[in-house]
Amino acid sequence: MKFCPSCGSGLNYHVPAGDDRHRFVCTACEEIHYVNPRVIVGCVPIHQGRVLLCKRAIEPRLGYWTLPAGFMENGETSLQGAARETWEEARARVTDMQLYRIFDVPHISQVHMFYRCQVQDGAYGVGPESSASGFYAETEIPWDEIAFPVIRETLQEYFADALSGQFPVRVSVIDRRLRSTA
Amino acid sequence: MKFCPSCGSGLNYHVPAGDDRHRFVCTACEEIHYVNPRVIVGCVPIHQGRVLLCKRAIEPRLGYWTLPAGFMENGETSLQGAARETWEEARARVTDMQLYRIFDVPHISQVHMFYRCQVQDGAYGVGPESSASGFYAETEIPWDEIAFPVIRETLQEYFADALSGQFPVRVSVIDRRLRSTA
Repeated sequence: MKFCPSCGSGLNYHVPAGDDRHRFVCTACEEIHYVNPRVIVGCVPIHQGRVLLCKRAIEPRLGYWTLPAGFMENGETSLQGAARETWEEARARVTDMQLYRIFDVPHISQVHMFYRCQVQDGAYGVGPESSASGFYAETEIPWDEIAFPVIRETLQEYFADALSGQFPVRVSVIDRRLRSTA
Repeated sequence: MKFCPSCGSGLNYHVPAGDDRHRFVCTACEEIHYVNPRVIVGCVPIHQGRVLLCKRAIEPRLGYWTLPAGFMENGETSLQGAARETWEEARARVTDMQLYRIFDVPHISQVHMFYRCQVQDGAYGVGPESSASGFYAETEIPWDEIAFPVIRETLQEYFADALSGQFPVRVSVIDRRLRSTA
């Protein structure tokens, strides 16, 4: 961020009066431009005990497998966003959505929210950001080709929870420096 | 948003190729500038069955009562942000934090996350964005002077849950047009 989105003038990066962290501040109109974490929303889509995975057709982690997920958009709820991403990436319509898993990923300033859900009629396809998709039982999952740590952890927990039928909402931290339960 | 934060040129607002919603796109460098929901993090700070509320010294809703909460910052976890806000607004240090309540507020593109917690030694004060603070039992809360719907709903649920000792994580939608459980 180098120029003021409001007036086009140059920006300074300093601690404004009354604040305690560096912000982008316009040298002309003095507007402060805050930069905040982004929310990733996604699903753990289930049909007959199997989970719907997508093979990524885009970077990062092209060719690796993931749960359908992406950036939450303005004007939608986290639930709507998770359902939208599942349609976009796996052409699946979801029902019975229940919040399941939250991750803080502070080194990239993201919060991830995953909903458990059922897939309507077990129907799915391959969206433009995927090269393949399909339902996987625990023993069928390509564990060595999972795209991101949050995906691996969510899948491991899901199959463990499915044994007991209890699915508590969990929140924890994924950090490149450390990893601990929040 | 009128000017490109990267190069200072003018922006267009249109649907980029391969996308399905309007974005701010630079007329010169063609960078797409995404605008996403923001996360509000806060606490339900408890000591001996009472909840710590702050009277707002800033707009919006100046003079009304709220739970300590504010914008999540880059580089922190939601838990760290909620603890930070509780220190900033009520000078209280919190322990035993447990995720409790999530709200989607799509008409202002926000996600709110509240943690239940205990207040260390029951100690608190008044931060610069508050004009007063204090612990309130359910019957003492100024219910007609609560700043925001999410605060009223969280407080009502907290005291109901406290009767049973069960505090499930809930997510629902607060919308100026409708209000329903997600």
